[in-house]
Amino acid sequence: MQIRDFRIHSLAISDPPLRSSFGLHAPLALRTVIELESADGIIGIAETHGGDGPTQALESLRTRVIGQDATRLFVSLSDLQGQSAYRMALSALEVASLDLIGKTVGLPVHALLGGKVRDKVPFSAYAFYKHAWGESKYGEALTPEGLVTQVQQLITDYGFGSIKLKAGVLEPDAEIETIKLLRQTLGPEVPLRIDPNCVWSVETSVRAGKALRDELSDGGYLEDPAQGIAGMAAVRAGLLDQGIQTPLASNMAVTSFATLAEAHQHDACQIVLGDHHYWGGLRAVAELGRVCETLGIGLSMHSNSHLGVSLMAMVHVAAATHHLTYACDTHYPWQKIIAEGRIPITGGNVSVPDLPGLGVTLNYDQLEKLKERYKNSTYRVRDDVAEMRKQVSPNWERRHW
Amino acid sequence: MQIRDFRIHSLAISDPPLRSSFGLHAPLALRTVIELESADGIIGIAETHGGDGPTQALESLRTRVIGQDATRLFVSLSDLQGQSAYRMALSALEVASLDLIGKTVGLPVHALLGGKVRDKVPFSAYAFYKHAWGESKYGEALTPEGLVTQVQQLITDYGFGSIKLKAGVLEPDAEIETIKLLRQTLGPEVPLRIDPNCVWSVETSVRAGKALRDELSDGGYLEDPAQGIAGMAAVRAGLLDQGIQTPLASNMAVTSFATLAEAHQHDACQIVLGDHHYWGGLRAVAELGRVCETLGIGLSMHSNSHLGVSLMAMVHVAAATHHLTYACDTHYPWQKIIAEGRIPITGGNVSVPDLPGLGVTLNYDQLEKLKERYKNSTYRVRDDVAEMRKQVSPNWERRHW
Repeated sequence: MQIRDFRIHSLAISDPPLRSSFGLHAPLALRTVIELESADGIIGIAETHGGDGPTQALESLRTRVIGQDATRLFVSLSDLQGQSAYRMALSALEVASLDLIGKTVGLPVHALLGGKVRDKVPFSAYAFYKHAWGESKYGEALTPEGLVTQVQQLITDYGFGSIKLKAGVLEPDAEIETIKLLRQTLGPEVPLRIDPNCVWSVETSVRAGKALRDELSDGGYLEDPAQGIAGMAAVRAGLLDQGIQTPLASNMAVTSFATLAEAHQHDACQIVLGDHHYWGGLRAVAELGRVCETLGIGLSMHSNSHLGVSLMAMVHVAAATHHLTYACDTHYPWQKIIAEGRIPITGGNVSVPDLPGLGVTLNYDQLEKLKERYKNSTYRVRDDVAEMRKQVSPNWERRHW
Repeated sequence: MQIRDFRIHSLAISDPPLRSSFGLHAPLALRTVIELESADGIIGIAETHGGDGPTQALESLRTRVIGQDATRLFVSLSDLQGQSAYRMALSALEVASLDLIGKTVGLPVHALLGGKVRDKVPFSAYAFYKHAWGESKYGEALTPEGLVTQVQQLITDYGFGSIKLKAGVLEPDAEIETIKLLRQTLGPEVPLRIDPNCVWSVETSVRAGKALRDELSDGGYLEDPAQGIAGMAAVRAGLLDQGIQTPLASNMAVTSFATLAEAHQHDACQIVLGDHHYWGGLRAVAELGRVCETLGIGLSMHSNSHLGVSLMAMVHVAAATHHLTYACDTHYPWQKIIAEGRIPITGGNVSVPDLPGLGVTLNYDQLEKLKERYKNSTYRVRDDVAEMRKQVSPNWERRHW
């Protein structure tokens, strides 16, 4: 399985005007798709973050990738393991090489990760305060009521069994009200999560945790309410002081095995949101499952704006990870697709494919269009603050409550 | 890859009269070899502990194994995950199914564990106080000098670069003397380990750790000196009190992810000796590597008397485990073989095979002989105390120092 070609495609995909504490999603989101082609003409693919930085990191490894055997890629690049500059690039190369190996021998990627332990992977609805967007049935949602309407539509379309609200956008009381309204509307069975991306103070976080004590119980969580491991630990202590057990999830304070160890020491995080793009790859996330299990910590998965390739990579590693204790996040319903055919999300689940490799194929016509769009656009780095100032409010600043 | 046959072979292999704190190895050691045969006639193999218990646990799963697809075995048996009664049986089935999958598609087992990160796996010499044994060049070794002669022979034959002494056999002072003599003879470069299988008191352990402060530094360790997590923690505290950093290794106090978490809380263990036979399988050991890395703990591997199948399973998982920080244990030089051809240990290393599956083939003539030997023997459970009383000293009791 000698790699004879390594192609890097910078793409711009349309993205709806979703809001978060960081500002506003730009109309184009940047992604990178890579292809590893073997001497047999078989192609392994992967998707990662977009823009100049990720492309350059991948490009810098070209001479070490070309000519290498796909099954020896980790041995040959092992000196770069743990170097943060290469973390995302190595993850993309891991996914693409596993896809290539799987397609060559006829095994799904999950079988190259030790074997699947489930046939379906549950995902959570990812609800956003947002502005109107063209002719989409998902219109403006900038109030508690608008958000509830959006969630009902997401449930109708995809059958999601748990809901995550991207918060840190409205006043905390309006976001608390949104969660309460979701609970009232959806009934007691649907786990609810809220994620203000750490723009709440410790005091606000504890107040929200207290106000949403019942709404976030039974499978829900409070995600990255306050900043850093110290902030999260203080929120946890404040909640426990009041007898509130609501677990704290994180993908901002806890982004690596080292920060996980530190967070655990301070009881700052009870649920990790893994992400193979920046935790070191699919194997790393599967191993993260065992680390979390050993530490008595839950595991879910984080998502960025992504196409079907990253979604399927998540599905394979989630299928092979015994200790996946919460439904995964996905932006997939918000994105246009690059893969052939849309990956169905039914009853909130993606079925684990047993096709060779990732089980997803690039649509090359679409790929060329998205490459053109990238070339013709000026976006090279994600900047939600700039977009917010351009589209909504010229003097907008990221707000802390 | 539907499994159409599941064969369980109970074997008795000759074993030399090795001593440990538990007594004396019997002339026959018990092992079980299993075969999973697919509808295509391809056979996956694994080896595990022997005697009636392991055979019965495997036998009890027969109806759930036959007819199952090898790639779905974990999904279909996932309800048994974590149940201690099935832990060893599930591990054997995992190894055999990975061997079967690998042989079917043409991939080595390490490629089914996420991919290898090294081409050679280092092993440590496993030196034993022992009685004479037939015509073997490894004769009696019941003194410090005899042990040094044995180690020199092991180094000549296999090129081992680190040495483990099975202790708890002679008076502690004689074992301390043995390590000192090994250090004098072998020079400063060879890491030394000593393992009394927790028959030393905390006081004796700390005294030995102090006496061997220099000898066990630079890659050496003190393995399971005292009993249980509390005993190990007390030894660690006692050593640190005297400024002695010698790490403590364990495969007796730490035997699972749960006991590892507890041991880590009490600083009772700085190096884990993993063993896929009882940690839950090859994936579990690879994941153990990441758990250890996260906790700042070292990783080596434990060995029982084993044949080439278990040795190769260890080699594959060690090849796929980045955080393998110490050479692995192996009894292999002491055992007769069941595999076709003897697996070479050169320069202390076993080369990682890239052949399909485990890369090891059963010798069926030899298998039949060892099955006959099992049938014709009365051994069904390992009992080193009984053997010691029979062969050496009728009133022998396990001694604590």
